[in-house]
Amino acid sequence: MIADKMKPVLVGAAAIARMFAEGDEQRKEFGADNVFDFSIGNPNVPAPPEVDTAIRHELDTEDPVFLHGYTPTAGYTDVREAVAAHLNNEFGAGYQMKDIIMTPGAGAALVATFYTLLDPGDDILVFAPYFLAYGNYAGMFGGRLTVVPPDTDTFQPDLSKMEELIGPRTKAVLINSPNNPSGVVYSAETLTAIAAVMEKKQKEFGHTIALISDEPYRELVYDADVEVPFVPDFYKNTIVEYSFSKTLSLPGDRIGYIAFTHGMDEEDDLIAAAGAAIVNMGITNAPSLTQRVAAQCLDFKVDVGIYKKNRDELMKGLSEIGYDFAEPQGAFYLFIKTPGGDDKKFCEVASKHHVLVSAGSSFGCPGYARVSYCVAYDTIVRSMPAFRKIWDEMA
Amino acid sequence: MIADKMKPVLVGAAAIARMFAEGDEQRKEFGADNVFDFSIGNPNVPAPPEVDTAIRHELDTEDPVFLHGYTPTAGYTDVREAVAAHLNNEFGAGYQMKDIIMTPGAGAALVATFYTLLDPGDDILVFAPYFLAYGNYAGMFGGRLTVVPPDTDTFQPDLSKMEELIGPRTKAVLINSPNNPSGVVYSAETLTAIAAVMEKKQKEFGHTIALISDEPYRELVYDADVEVPFVPDFYKNTIVEYSFSKTLSLPGDRIGYIAFTHGMDEEDDLIAAAGAAIVNMGITNAPSLTQRVAAQCLDFKVDVGIYKKNRDELMKGLSEIGYDFAEPQGAFYLFIKTPGGDDKKFCEVASKHHVLVSAGSSFGCPGYARVSYCVAYDTIVRSMPAFRKIWDEMA
Repeated sequence: MIADKMKPVLVGAAAIARMFAEGDEQRKEFGADNVFDFSIGNPNVPAPPEVDTAIRHELDTEDPVFLHGYTPTAGYTDVREAVAAHLNNEFGAGYQMKDIIMTPGAGAALVATFYTLLDPGDDILVFAPYFLAYGNYAGMFGGRLTVVPPDTDTFQPDLSKMEELIGPRTKAVLINSPNNPSGVVYSAETLTAIAAVMEKKQKEFGHTIALISDEPYRELVYDADVEVPFVPDFYKNTIVEYSFSKTLSLPGDRIGYIAFTHGMDEEDDLIAAAGAAIVNMGITNAPSLTQRVAAQCLDFKVDVGIYKKNRDELMKGLSEIGYDFAEPQGAFYLFIKTPGGDDKKFCEVASKHHVLVSAGSSFGCPGYARVSYCVAYDTIVRSMPAFRKIWDEMA
Repeated sequence: MIADKMKPVLVGAAAIARMFAEGDEQRKEFGADNVFDFSIGNPNVPAPPEVDTAIRHELDTEDPVFLHGYTPTAGYTDVREAVAAHLNNEFGAGYQMKDIIMTPGAGAALVATFYTLLDPGDDILVFAPYFLAYGNYAGMFGGRLTVVPPDTDTFQPDLSKMEELIGPRTKAVLINSPNNPSGVVYSAETLTAIAAVMEKKQKEFGHTIALISDEPYRELVYDADVEVPFVPDFYKNTIVEYSFSKTLSLPGDRIGYIAFTHGMDEEDDLIAAAGAAIVNMGITNAPSLTQRVAAQCLDFKVDVGIYKKNRDELMKGLSEIGYDFAEPQGAFYLFIKTPGGDDKKFCEVASKHHVLVSAGSSFGCPGYARVSYCVAYDTIVRSMPAFRKIWDEMA
């Protein structure tokens, strides 16, 4: 009775299940302390204490019928007001309440946006390396990804290839900065150039092309001189997909939002369509209590110093061994060039030494591997002899 | 840039927005106390106190990295174990942990199931009256509903019409008992007969047909002699879609589950496919904290006596005026026959008297209207003169 279309999906799901099973089996066999699992992007830094305080505050002060009740599809009005005010204050943006739609995380925000934009055969332009789930999201609606190959010198987008690949069926360009898996932040120059190409192509094709900015790592940057440019400043038709998962370390609670740039083309229809998408996807509303908690924690974030210390230690250790990578400015990933060039082989050898990392092929970027450093500092320090053995075997 | 497929969706969304706006406008103009809003199924009975206790218990005792972290796609293992054990204890069922997938409510559970079952052109058989969103859920995947017309004498399914309408592209039969909007509970006789037709048709067409049981109102029944039969007892290939929204009055928090009957056809593939659906829909996992809360509250429910008192008062008042309806045994809806027969006209006249109800046409059952009685008891009592005026104008 299962749909024919699910058959390839099941093959992919089985591969992922095997990967998870491998980690669990290794932990069981060799002990959790002897397995260095850098494969998963699950924050290890606790939520700021304000999250706990906000939950208790809501329980203490709100009527439970209100607190646990259905909210409007787009979210509580006061929560949307608070998010708009925060963005306006932080970035000098011009959001109004109606421009913000609360969602259960950035993933659901992206799917709702794709649902709104894609007819079968339409495409979304992405830059490798990119988060592989984008393709599954688009595929649900008969859409597909057009992938701009990576510029592995800088991991900034390759703009001339972008200009070649953008076509009349391109409904949107999707960027993700700070980037998963490279950790690179797209510069103001890059965004200016992307916007210029898109403006030109909008004229050429005679229709609007949206710029979708997937920003779950917006607040996770580590150096004083690194600023994450605010994407809507560069291009009017920008849709921001935000998640509190990493900023507040509550990925399990599922909370984020879509921010439609005030005054963008077709804005009112986009907002109405995204609301309908949320209904039709069975999402109903972003979790009610968590919406209120997020609104009270807009000015807080996790202790990013912990991730910075991890990053610095990982960079130092891997450099000393000889590994090559672009310095990650944000997110909690380091994207290493795999010695020998075969990233799948590299992951197998790493696994043999109880080091679990993700193949770059899974991000449209073979020859690289993603090392997630949202782990205990101690894990990084203790893993270095294993990384050296892997190097010796592969280089 | 909006997809062509969204154009009819936007028309529907605009109609719903107008309906909500009307309620808000009336409340502003005439005062909230003078508007009798029976249009929305948002529980007015507070969550049992155990919900608050469970949230605080989790905050007090769990590591926040665990409590707010990603859970496996299908949910926390211990939560799934607890749900399986509860169902086994309650219904003598044979669920194992793996058969349960936690979801953000029954809506998302249904969409994940439809995603798993439907190729374009497939259909789902439903019995009118039914929850209109089912059609939108199926439409996302190119599926469609085949609607069995209502038996308005009993509001039990019309089985001979069912047998006529079930076809080779029917992937599933979808039932909802206690029913929204009729409040009717499907009897054991009905379920036996549905199962017999489905077994026969499975043989005839040579493939499995799933029975999807949408059960958000399972715990809301009002009379000692009414029992909600456990659907998987009647048909092996049953998929239960459950929500805690009504049982625990936390619809905003988004928590429910899918229960695949242990040993049903293609079970392991169905489970894997539903997990992949959750990933591809951007859902990631059911809210983590709320999963744990639900697991601690499996033996509790809201004070259904409040709904019963509402139902009895509403039935008494409307009967005295002359309204005709099937006695609702569960859920919190009363489905009245609209005097004059034109349900849309009835809703307009009702609205003029500040009574807001939902047209039966919106549930595939013209000539009826849904009165939601999850409202203050006082609202029911004070609305009766208005219901009388509407009767006098329409009958």
